[in-house]
Amino acid sequence: MALTVENALLDGERVGVRCERGTIATLGAAVTSEPGDETIDAGGAHLVPPLVNGHTHAAMTLFRGSGGDLPLMPWLEEKIWPVEAKLDADDVYWGARLACAEMLRSGTTRFWDMYWQPAATARAVEEAGVRATIGAPLFDLNSSPEELRRAAHTGLEELEGFGPHITPALAPHAIYTVSEESLRWIGELSAERELPVQIHLSETEKEVQDCLAEHGERPAFYLDRLGMLNERTVLAHGVWLDPDELALIAERGATVVSNPVANMKLAVGGVFPFPAARTVGVRVGLGTDGAGSNDSLDLFADLKTFALAQKHAAADPTAIEAEEALAVATGAQAPLLGATPLEAGAPADFLLLRKESPELGIGDLVSDLVYAASGAAVATTVVAGRVLMRDGEIPELDEILARAAERAGRLGL
Amino acid sequence: MALTVENALLDGERVGVRCERGTIATLGAAVTSEPGDETIDAGGAHLVPPLVNGHTHAAMTLFRGSGGDLPLMPWLEEKIWPVEAKLDADDVYWGARLACAEMLRSGTTRFWDMYWQPAATARAVEEAGVRATIGAPLFDLNSSPEELRRAAHTGLEELEGFGPHITPALAPHAIYTVSEESLRWIGELSAERELPVQIHLSETEKEVQDCLAEHGERPAFYLDRLGMLNERTVLAHGVWLDPDELALIAERGATVVSNPVANMKLAVGGVFPFPAARTVGVRVGLGTDGAGSNDSLDLFADLKTFALAQKHAAADPTAIEAEEALAVATGAQAPLLGATPLEAGAPADFLLLRKESPELGIGDLVSDLVYAASGAAVATTVVAGRVLMRDGEIPELDEILARAAERAGRLGL
Repeated sequence: MALTVENALLDGERVGVRCERGTIATLGAAVTSEPGDETIDAGGAHLVPPLVNGHTHAAMTLFRGSGGDLPLMPWLEEKIWPVEAKLDADDVYWGARLACAEMLRSGTTRFWDMYWQPAATARAVEEAGVRATIGAPLFDLNSSPEELRRAAHTGLEELEGFGPHITPALAPHAIYTVSEESLRWIGELSAERELPVQIHLSETEKEVQDCLAEHGERPAFYLDRLGMLNERTVLAHGVWLDPDELALIAERGATVVSNPVANMKLAVGGVFPFPAARTVGVRVGLGTDGAGSNDSLDLFADLKTFALAQKHAAADPTAIEAEEALAVATGAQAPLLGATPLEAGAPADFLLLRKESPELGIGDLVSDLVYAASGAAVATTVVAGRVLMRDGEIPELDEILARAAERAGRLGL
Repeated sequence: MALTVENALLDGERVGVRCERGTIATLGAAVTSEPGDETIDAGGAHLVPPLVNGHTHAAMTLFRGSGGDLPLMPWLEEKIWPVEAKLDADDVYWGARLACAEMLRSGTTRFWDMYWQPAATARAVEEAGVRATIGAPLFDLNSSPEELRRAAHTGLEELEGFGPHITPALAPHAIYTVSEESLRWIGELSAERELPVQIHLSETEKEVQDCLAEHGERPAFYLDRLGMLNERTVLAHGVWLDPDELALIAERGATVVSNPVANMKLAVGGVFPFPAARTVGVRVGLGTDGAGSNDSLDLFADLKTFALAQKHAAADPTAIEAEEALAVATGAQAPLLGATPLEAGAPADFLLLRKESPELGIGDLVSDLVYAASGAAVATTVVAGRVLMRDGEIPELDEILARAAERAGRLGL
């Protein structure tokens, strides 16, 4: 069945959007509902593109609040790893369902995920109706590269059984947890099968110092030497990238995803150098990181923090403007991330904003989306032409909340 | 009529709250509705104290988005001051009504305001049912101290005609816009009539350097010498206070209100030194500043940014913990700000959280309120025993939005 949204506001003009077979068939002032269509009267609500969460660990909603206010290593060693060792597929499924609900609620319809039991996350994503690029975290500190290779292939096979909303990826955890040999074959596998690769890079200053000490080069150069830096690569964090690394990343066409809230919460001490990255043309996206270290998955909130952190770090209020910050959060600035523009032929993924929002209606919409709104400004969310949230209501939310809380309880969280 | 809230969750226990004549008459497990009471079944929703916005310029909702991404002085000179010269009482009234709606929506029931046409703001506050401490900004750069004194008295008389929800205050703008002579008599008037004083202090490093150059002492010492630093004083910003100033402020019992979002947006380059302030016992509150430089009035968002900015500035994730950050935002840490604790005899001001909040329900509630929630987590807001928002619905919101937009349009904003 086709879905038609009538009477929406796009760039100040009244428009309709007709969605057929998951894509935007027509969009414009003349578009109206046809007989048999499911129809939404937007009542003059703003139509805007959804956000893309470029880096998260969805099922870590179960770990929300578990960070206490701890530093990174005690947090991982005392709170996260012992519990992760006990996770089963149902834990991950309900944690990821909760994450999907929170992201849907706040205007994110696509995310990049790195977590255990990736098939359980994929199942949750399909049930929720959203989209995700998913990879199992690959470590080989305690296993041979050969064992890791088998694990990677098994993970990919499981993910390849899903539908078009799931994009399988390779997710080597970091340069300090994956051997040089494994990074090399992961790069080759990515090239051979055209698979996206997600990796944490340059999150802490220690990582950079260790890389220099061990390999004699900075992290981006090390990755590049192993064939891991190209237009299929998403580098999460990038806090300590220097100008030479940024120039190399731009040249290779790789994407950096900034996670300002998690970086500030874990107090890594720096901020991804966006102005320098912009100068050389790096593709940039925005991520929440996991709910264990944020602790929210509302990317609108992180969008504001991203802009504030850039201005603060530069001691310059002009360091970033609202429009470019928004382009980072929608994924429009980094093609790999999978932005969905509002145009005929594109996937029918979009948001309708709440009309009764005290924070909207006075300022410029783009500025207000960045600086005044939270995800609560979103009333209705459509993905692939399906209405996944209508007037703030998400089907099955009560059950999702109850089941996720039950799983967290089981884990002693 | 009495209001009774049944079946709420407070610190993990089911409780009822009965409100009579604007105060909490009884609170506890045994409290239930009596015949004739207005009754709310909270259905197991969390009952929490509201937040206090310690520094704002409410009517500046009309200026939302007008900051562009400009530095402070061009923003003031090009965007703000020319328009402020044209403001009438109705502009301020509707701007302040919009601000009250946005604050109510996001869990703030009391605010400290400094703005033109203070009686119009007071009228808006009374209509909205919330509470505010209000002062007209006092400047004497272009007038004599005698003219300023007359203006101050006129402003106070207007504000004293309002009911108990309005607390009149003196609001000298800053040490660089009010003469030494005027600061002195403002301090005397405050002492004589027991009036609170709000002043911007140490927002930019330039202000500190200018104060040192002109007066040979840092801003807090200068204020103290003029009799302006005491338990009635609220210092907004305090970004550049040094340890000696913090010790003096603590000794005098004055309150510092941090405005982390506005400070980062205007990129003043620093962060209020909370850990140092805590060490010497300074009373601390949290403010949004005006919507022109934030651009939101959702103090829950600023609460998270406050904690993140402290951790980031200290490069230490333990620099502030969730519980102390929340105490700053509720005003519990600074008696002057007017916190409303949840206990019998206190003003009947409280919030009920939304049960269907994906971001709540897994973690510890205090941690989630600080790091995971936005103001959208608030479902119902009660002030003085009156239900001002029920299940997210604010009466007259449509009219307020329309009238505020009309006033902003009239002003060319």
